[in-house]
Amino acid sequence: MTLHDAFAKAAQLDAHDPLAVQRAHFDIPDGTLYFDGNSLGPLTFRSREALHQTIEHEWRERLIRSWNENWLDMPLRVGNAIAPLIGAATNTVICADNTSINLSKALHAAVALRPDRTEIVVDINNFPTDIYIAQSVASQYGLTLVAVTADEIAGAISQNTAVVTATHVDYRSARILNAEEITRVAHQHGALMVWDLAHTAGAVPFDAQQLDTDFAVGCGYKYLNGGPGAPAFIYVAPRLLEVSGQPLQGWWGHAEPFQFEVDYRPAPGISRFLTGTANVLSMKSLEASLEVFSGVTMAQIREKSMALTSFFVELFDQFLAAKGFTMGSPRAPEQRGSHVALGFAGGKALVESMAERGVIADFRPPDLMRFGFAPLYNSYADVVKLAEHLANH
Amino acid sequence: MTLHDAFAKAAQLDAHDPLAVQRAHFDIPDGTLYFDGNSLGPLTFRSREALHQTIEHEWRERLIRSWNENWLDMPLRVGNAIAPLIGAATNTVICADNTSINLSKALHAAVALRPDRTEIVVDINNFPTDIYIAQSVASQYGLTLVAVTADEIAGAISQNTAVVTATHVDYRSARILNAEEITRVAHQHGALMVWDLAHTAGAVPFDAQQLDTDFAVGCGYKYLNGGPGAPAFIYVAPRLLEVSGQPLQGWWGHAEPFQFEVDYRPAPGISRFLTGTANVLSMKSLEASLEVFSGVTMAQIREKSMALTSFFVELFDQFLAAKGFTMGSPRAPEQRGSHVALGFAGGKALVESMAERGVIADFRPPDLMRFGFAPLYNSYADVVKLAEHLANH
Repeated sequence: MTLHDAFAKAAQLDAHDPLAVQRAHFDIPDGTLYFDGNSLGPLTFRSREALHQTIEHEWRERLIRSWNENWLDMPLRVGNAIAPLIGAATNTVICADNTSINLSKALHAAVALRPDRTEIVVDINNFPTDIYIAQSVASQYGLTLVAVTADEIAGAISQNTAVVTATHVDYRSARILNAEEITRVAHQHGALMVWDLAHTAGAVPFDAQQLDTDFAVGCGYKYLNGGPGAPAFIYVAPRLLEVSGQPLQGWWGHAEPFQFEVDYRPAPGISRFLTGTANVLSMKSLEASLEVFSGVTMAQIREKSMALTSFFVELFDQFLAAKGFTMGSPRAPEQRGSHVALGFAGGKALVESMAERGVIADFRPPDLMRFGFAPLYNSYADVVKLAEHLANH
Repeated sequence: MTLHDAFAKAAQLDAHDPLAVQRAHFDIPDGTLYFDGNSLGPLTFRSREALHQTIEHEWRERLIRSWNENWLDMPLRVGNAIAPLIGAATNTVICADNTSINLSKALHAAVALRPDRTEIVVDINNFPTDIYIAQSVASQYGLTLVAVTADEIAGAISQNTAVVTATHVDYRSARILNAEEITRVAHQHGALMVWDLAHTAGAVPFDAQQLDTDFAVGCGYKYLNGGPGAPAFIYVAPRLLEVSGQPLQGWWGHAEPFQFEVDYRPAPGISRFLTGTANVLSMKSLEASLEVFSGVTMAQIREKSMALTSFFVELFDQFLAAKGFTMGSPRAPEQRGSHVALGFAGGKALVESMAERGVIADFRPPDLMRFGFAPLYNSYADVVKLAEHLANH
């Protein structure tokens, strides 16, 4: 296959891509090839419009009245928009804070439900903030933190384990962990399970209800395209909603926040996982970008995601393997999330020089270049253009 | 004094008001009289401009590159813009999360510094979320929560007290607590002090360094005009920066977040009080609205604030006292923050019907109407118009 052949194949694939029309939702600058949706999703026309409406109408004109008219319900409303993307039921997901803080809430809630257990098991290849938060929770309760690789998690779970936390899609390799097995083993031992869906939500199917995971957390600014620092979310299994608590028990998690009572009473349901005032602007942007997922199924997204990454792996074999790049992601598409990582000795400099030419990816130490392929806006032609840039570096 | 006289007096006062020019920074709709800056500050032209630049240039065009170009430094940059408003030194304030979460960090840090103490003393008239968070921290460490009125705080502090937390300006009455005395007594007993500056920052002077308070937290969306749900801030005394830690130890508080180390190492200085990714849009809006404070001193703001609220108290005596309103704020201007609360049996309905006429205040149970007078955009004429609306209700 020549590059010319690859472009011809891409044209065929793009012509028959049912998601190709979704790209019209995204305002990606001309001349920019964007492969970093795994880090920051691009601006959607809907987010721009919602932000304009929020600034000009809700904030400027309606001022404080917008809290009752619109904003107070927003964390639950946005949670309910995220829920179908992760297989969660209505009113079991809420949008708030950032992923680290939501993970802290989930781990505290889990440990409180397993007071006699002595260990927290974590994936040592979690995004580091998850480990730092788990270290903190373990230290606060005098628990032992057992940090192991993904393959060792199931074997590390025992009757001592209070809670297991792992990232569904590895942030470096894009490897998809075996959520079914790990959750099942955790439950077999009476431990609770917290999944981090940062690289899952909006890109890889996840079925919170079928898995029966206890908690999940995730991020709004990657494949959900909520904008820089968009708020995160937390899922709690319905069977745990009324028996769980969390220590960041601010007024937004109170049963009646506007009664200004002296004693904390947790809200019924998922709202008890809120703490304080929502970041309206950022959450509005996320609420709008989530509309792009309506009319699209996660099965369609997954199918195109696997096709895009598989096409890139094919081009890697053809054009890049001989030029110093190594494959840093699983070769089997069903084991791979929506980005592909390549090892490359000069990776950091190459990511920077490509960015100057408008080809945007990112880099993770020590030598990994990450290329995110977002099914809602990346085309097969984008994939060939990327391979061409890398081959000609 | 007739209302006509009052308008004439207001015209005189407005004509000689050195802060009158600041109103041009605010895009308040024609026909709206806004007295709720103590709850949500109005839109500034600078915030609109900054949000436009953030959406169109930083997010849309520069995409992920904006993290290095602008956003990573933002929490500290915004903290440094807030610092002079609360008498804090450079690099001792950081912008992050919401007030409840920052209070949780401060209380955890304080309790860890006083491991042998058994009590937390709180002002029972704190905004409730502060009490809920203190209840949580006390419960986690097995400490006793001593909740007392403002006048009882100093007397409640003892050798058992780990930390005292109180709100500098009462959210209902606007009463200013005696920060000097309470902080001094706390320190005399070896306890640490956390001030909540929600109704202080941008409206009432506070000198963190001269008081030598240990911690302070506050909010970005009231008198700082950062927009709905704008992020909050936390101050830590320089002498405590290197010895304090907090349990929400996410990657943004790590010494080298982009080294992706497995173990948490706190950043030197105030950055260790960060947790996760900043809400860029909301924080950008706050950064821009803070520019309005440049060229204005807190002494000027305080002088006008006292003059505005005193003028309203004068009009209350003249026009409202006989009509069922009662004074819910201190009469001595030096004991009063920047809002005035009036008790009124039908307060909730009156706030709602006035809002329909574009006269916006707020209500706190059981019967308090709150009227915020923000020196940067409220005029003396506004005060008379408000009194007229209330008198004619």
